[in-house]
Amino acid sequence: MSEKRYDTPQEAEAAFYAAFIKRDVNAMMEVWAADENISCIHPLGQILIGRTAVRDSWEEIFRHSPEVQIMINGRSRGQDESFAIHVVEEHIRAGNDPAGTPMHTTNVYHLTESGWRMVLHHASPAPPPPKNDSPTLH
Amino acid sequence: MSEKRYDTPQEAEAAFYAAFIKRDVNAMMEVWAADENISCIHPLGQILIGRTAVRDSWEEIFRHSPEVQIMINGRSRGQDESFAIHVVEEHIRAGNDPAGTPMHTTNVYHLTESGWRMVLHHASPAPPPPKNDSPTLH
Repeated sequence: MSEKRYDTPQEAEAAFYAAFIKRDVNAMMEVWAADENISCIHPLGQILIGRTAVRDSWEEIFRHSPEVQIMINGRSRGQDESFAIHVVEEHIRAGNDPAGTPMHTTNVYHLTESGWRMVLHHASPAPPPPKNDSPTLH
Repeated sequence: MSEKRYDTPQEAEAAFYAAFIKRDVNAMMEVWAADENISCIHPLGQILIGRTAVRDSWEEIFRHSPEVQIMINGRSRGQDESFAIHVVEEHIRAGNDPAGTPMHTTNVYHLTESGWRMVLHHASPAPPPPKNDSPTLH
């Protein structure tokens, strides 16, 4: 592993989404802790545990995904000296397509000997927008 | 709030699922931290933040849900002195119905002045089972 070091959970989170946008699996795995308990749940996906399963999943996603833009809307943060929990909305847009369903995501960071690292990413689809029952007709 | 105290994250988790099964909103809210950053994401639901929103959501769920049985399968645990992260599969069964889609759930507990309390619950549906493409024909 590289000696990349994130001094705050916010730096680790920025690196996580930068790697996601660049579709760079090495940069992605630098953000994750060197810990066999790390857990990742992609939207409606299996529970993935450990670096090999997590790495394989991101490789698979990056292999099939087009270039994306991601807008993050932070909703809640909790933190102490060694753990940080961020709940965010992810708005992911591929190329010029309209944004798809937002994701509701829990990201957990842990202060390790090599700085703050991600230990959990759990993303799931937001509810569908309410149906507009009275569309304006022209 | 009561003086109920959970000495371990495991005790808090047991109390959480006991309250869920009993559909007891007061017992449920005893498990959650007295913290306005607590976050709860029900399956494909909104991000709920703070005790009022979390309480209202459980009241709504308990009002409409039948008696349930819940089987929990722990998948991953991480912990230090003050935070614990549990990733579990929830198998929820209503009455004599067959079990529905399992839920993949992240539960986070924090050691507060009044013992271990839940600060985050994020549940989302597991993927559908793989289709059996070659059914046995008789």
